[in-house]
Amino acid sequence: MAGMERIRKVAARVRHEVGRGNEVAVVVSAMAGETDRLVGFCKEASPLYDTAEYDVVVASGEQVTSGLLAMTLKAMGVDARSWLGWQLPVRTMGNHSKARIHEIDTEALLTAMGGGQVAVIPGFQGQMEDGRVSTLGRGGSDTSAVAVAAAIKADRCDIYTDVDGVYTTDPRIVSRARKLDRITYEEMLELASVGSKVLQTRSVALAMKEGVRVQVLSSFEEPGDDPEPGTMIVSEEEIEDKKMERQLITGIAHDKNDAKIIVTRVPDKPGAVASIFGPLAEASINVDMIIQNDSKDKAETDVTFTVPRADLARAVDIIEGLKATIGFNRIITDPEVAKISVVGVGMRSHAGVAALMFKTLADRGINIEAISTSEIKVSVLIDEDETELAVRVLHTAYGLDGEQPAA
Amino acid sequence: MAGMERIRKVAARVRHEVGRGNEVAVVVSAMAGETDRLVGFCKEASPLYDTAEYDVVVASGEQVTSGLLAMTLKAMGVDARSWLGWQLPVRTMGNHSKARIHEIDTEALLTAMGGGQVAVIPGFQGQMEDGRVSTLGRGGSDTSAVAVAAAIKADRCDIYTDVDGVYTTDPRIVSRARKLDRITYEEMLELASVGSKVLQTRSVALAMKEGVRVQVLSSFEEPGDDPEPGTMIVSEEEIEDKKMERQLITGIAHDKNDAKIIVTRVPDKPGAVASIFGPLAEASINVDMIIQNDSKDKAETDVTFTVPRADLARAVDIIEGLKATIGFNRIITDPEVAKISVVGVGMRSHAGVAALMFKTLADRGINIEAISTSEIKVSVLIDEDETELAVRVLHTAYGLDGEQPAA
Repeated sequence: MAGMERIRKVAARVRHEVGRGNEVAVVVSAMAGETDRLVGFCKEASPLYDTAEYDVVVASGEQVTSGLLAMTLKAMGVDARSWLGWQLPVRTMGNHSKARIHEIDTEALLTAMGGGQVAVIPGFQGQMEDGRVSTLGRGGSDTSAVAVAAAIKADRCDIYTDVDGVYTTDPRIVSRARKLDRITYEEMLELASVGSKVLQTRSVALAMKEGVRVQVLSSFEEPGDDPEPGTMIVSEEEIEDKKMERQLITGIAHDKNDAKIIVTRVPDKPGAVASIFGPLAEASINVDMIIQNDSKDKAETDVTFTVPRADLARAVDIIEGLKATIGFNRIITDPEVAKISVVGVGMRSHAGVAALMFKTLADRGINIEAISTSEIKVSVLIDEDETELAVRVLHTAYGLDGEQPAA
Repeated sequence: MAGMERIRKVAARVRHEVGRGNEVAVVVSAMAGETDRLVGFCKEASPLYDTAEYDVVVASGEQVTSGLLAMTLKAMGVDARSWLGWQLPVRTMGNHSKARIHEIDTEALLTAMGGGQVAVIPGFQGQMEDGRVSTLGRGGSDTSAVAVAAAIKADRCDIYTDVDGVYTTDPRIVSRARKLDRITYEEMLELASVGSKVLQTRSVALAMKEGVRVQVLSSFEEPGDDPEPGTMIVSEEEIEDKKMERQLITGIAHDKNDAKIIVTRVPDKPGAVASIFGPLAEASINVDMIIQNDSKDKAETDVTFTVPRADLARAVDIIEGLKATIGFNRIITDPEVAKISVVGVGMRSHAGVAALMFKTLADRGINIEAISTSEIKVSVLIDEDETELAVRVLHTAYGLDGEQPAA
């Protein structure tokens, strides 16, 4: 949420929903730039700041927005009040600065909403069992919104974002990308985790667990009588119940946040490969695609895998430290790789999806460096320079191109 | 409190006090400019903003400082934690945006302090009986500090301000103004209410009621082993117990916040004058000095009085509305007046104090437009242009000039 102009727009949207007879709870984020400013103060105070106090400082950003939105609504004649994390409370567990929502008390909230009052709730914040302020980690407001929707059993959870919905792929790369009317939680999770930055992965996982129907909408649109519908994120069952026609493939995602590591000539004996990945897991480094190349000399093997780019240096350090124990030859790294994923619930029953992907890329001379698959996704690792080309040819190959270039 | 540099200075001061074996609770204000920024947002949201939501927005300023100071202390190796208004809680009553502190729960606070932990408390904020956030009105952090000191029965309440103590008069006007070592609550109240802006009047009144020994110090000084002592505000009994030599007069204050109103030819009959002041009181306009000039024609009288300059237009409006009922001639206003006050507990037994004041001013040709007195104060109203001259000659006349010009 940006400055007062943005708050007024949100207030107008809320008034519109109230006018349609809806009971409304609004979860707000901080004003644009505010969280960065507050985090900056904390870093200035101490590079190793106390996370409980960090939460006290940073939670104030959403607190300010909630008060301002509630007073703007009241000034418009819409009854409203703010409910801070500790006032409901939003009960959290785990660690400060990255807490998890455990439970939300809704008694007071539902009474107020039942009386026609709009509830304005600062996202991102909650209260620990010991009564202290907690926050959910960056981007936590989406998760707060879904958690509130689940707690009050909302009919729908509308999330206003920088985009006006979920697309078949990044519209900046493919002008004929199409906005999806509907997408399943599973597909959204795969798209979110492989680089489509519409919603926080946590919030989608929570929506799936709690069965919250989420709608992604644009926060830039003027609130009119007939707002442009966004993308509904719903369960597979709901889509099947409505006998919607299903696409085989929902979308193409790309992700440039990984780096490739090759460890050469690892002795091909039981436990050798595991002894690489154990220490990485202990260091909380997430290893994604893994390939064990057969070497001619069967006594040794090359192991290729990806890690988040941000963890590359740390991962290399850890593996170097294992050289004496494991006895490999050397470590080759390549941060300039991209992961391209084809996602769709429909692919479960169609063996040809992966084959079409490999053929399409091969036809354009794009080399596949690694492959990983899940039930509803096929991912390949390619040279980063070929990202846009790969996304474009796959979007066409799977019949996703729209009639008109996207706006 | 300004930015991080200021917070680090406060942290160093606290560490110094902890090092001397003191148990410390710190009450903090918002960073410089922060409250104005937040109030600005509220005014932008709505000129007639909801005060309960205003409190939610504005209280965040002190919340941020409390978190930052606590984490700075921890980074210095001093155990500390923040206690927000609702966490203690600081129980308040009255109206949002100008609440009064009713009671402070100190159990958790005293346990933590007893365990060697510094308590960092955001000033200016509390919690209403219904659980909502409240604030005490601008400058309320001084009052919070005194209230906390009273609740935990502190030995002393040090208040760090823009100045290094209370002076016999404004050092910008009289270079030989002297810093006072001690002043009584009563004297401080008179000095505060007549324009010496060192401390909020409310905080001094509360300190007197609760018997809190307050020390006014400079927040600009570097925390060293022997900090420059400020001014102690204590009870008259304490000063008498120590058989301190007392000055007749403690200080000279000036105040340019009043305006003069003359209502001419008011019928001199019972109730006529009261019928002016009743409606002003109802409108919460504070009338200060009142003089009823005898006119030659005994059937009519001129009434002169002062009101806060900010209320002048409103006051005139109200009186104009009474013209038909009361039947006066006209209203003359003069906003360019100043109130000069001579303050001192010692004057109670010295009838000559007022006489010396009038003579000193008359000798310099300064015309006295109105007079008011209390047990420990004599105030006169003069032309605003003569403020500095009046303060200077009175400071000398009462023997207050120091040996050396003040730094």
